[in-house]
Amino acid sequence: MEQEYESGLLESAVTELSRLPGVGRKTALRLALHLLRQDKSVGTALGESLINLCNGIKYCSECHNISEDELCPICANPMRDHRTVCVVESVKDVMAIENTRQYQGVYHVLGGLISPIDGVGPDQLQIDSLVERVKNGGNVDEVIIALSATMEGETTGFYIFRRLGETDVKVTQLARGVAVGNDLEYTDEITLGRSLTGRTLFSDSI
Amino acid sequence: MEQEYESGLLESAVTELSRLPGVGRKTALRLALHLLRQDKSVGTALGESLINLCNGIKYCSECHNISEDELCPICANPMRDHRTVCVVESVKDVMAIENTRQYQGVYHVLGGLISPIDGVGPDQLQIDSLVERVKNGGNVDEVIIALSATMEGETTGFYIFRRLGETDVKVTQLARGVAVGNDLEYTDEITLGRSLTGRTLFSDSI
Repeated sequence: MEQEYESGLLESAVTELSRLPGVGRKTALRLALHLLRQDKSVGTALGESLINLCNGIKYCSECHNISEDELCPICANPMRDHRTVCVVESVKDVMAIENTRQYQGVYHVLGGLISPIDGVGPDQLQIDSLVERVKNGGNVDEVIIALSATMEGETTGFYIFRRLGETDVKVTQLARGVAVGNDLEYTDEITLGRSLTGRTLFSDSI
Repeated sequence: MEQEYESGLLESAVTELSRLPGVGRKTALRLALHLLRQDKSVGTALGESLINLCNGIKYCSECHNISEDELCPICANPMRDHRTVCVVESVKDVMAIENTRQYQGVYHVLGGLISPIDGVGPDQLQIDSLVERVKNGGNVDEVIIALSATMEGETTGFYIFRRLGETDVKVTQLARGVAVGNDLEYTDEITLGRSLTGRTLFSDSI
């Protein structure tokens, strides 16, 4: 591509910034000029933090969560329940579940969902390592499938369920139902149907 | 502030990214995790380009445009008409005018507009240096005020016009009128009024 700006430094910063998701060349230019208006330290601190991030972050060898060490802080924590493994799509889902403060087990980050349209098959995901973890370790009692309630999430969940069929681990999944705060009138039929079939004892919630 | 993420590297990347305009902590996290999913080289190239940008870009000593050298490529170009100086708010305006390919003169970048609400007075802008440039150089024939048609732009333009009154330079401003492609019916009265008083000879446009 032809160079757009006189300055090669600006050109390369705009090009690199525009690789970020949701950032086009116009936004990238705005960000670069914003950094130039600030003290030099703002931009260099940002640059250094990104370099450190990309060089310093590894993936936990056990659960594939991001980590600065061989094991992530969750897997390395002896206080967590290592017999319960929660299967999630991404690092963000680990953060979301951790924020509930309701889960004491460990995780397994797949790194995506099966999606034939996007060309993502089971081999690109951490599914084999999950099966290995359940089979060989032998000390996993329950695998909780905590994937999105989308077609990809359900497909991936079902695939994992089948793969784990060879083992005698208990496989559960997140409850599907009416989201807290949602109006019954505006809840779609599938959700409503599943919230009916999956109804729970009233006394369990009080 | 309390640290939000287990990883200090992630925490610092998110904090630095969220200093960018329009980027909150949620977006910053999304960007950081996106970089982690890419090859390591993407993030480090971005980081290095930002560091190089902030360390390498100077401001032209003549027109205050961004530059990698003492003089920007426009001021250093002997083919440009150095007797015509176009006064603009920002570096982006220089780019916009350069893109028209209609202007052969040089620029003077103010670095902002007078705005009492934002606490920006004439002293924070490159106005004194403009007056100096016109007065001392003695080889400027025309100053074109090319500022936004907003209250701040008009105020700043008028202030500059008054300051340049001490000199015998010709001061002009961008034509105000109906924007090309705009419907007359939906053009506001002030613009329409100014396009009438500033009407040009039809023969000049053909």
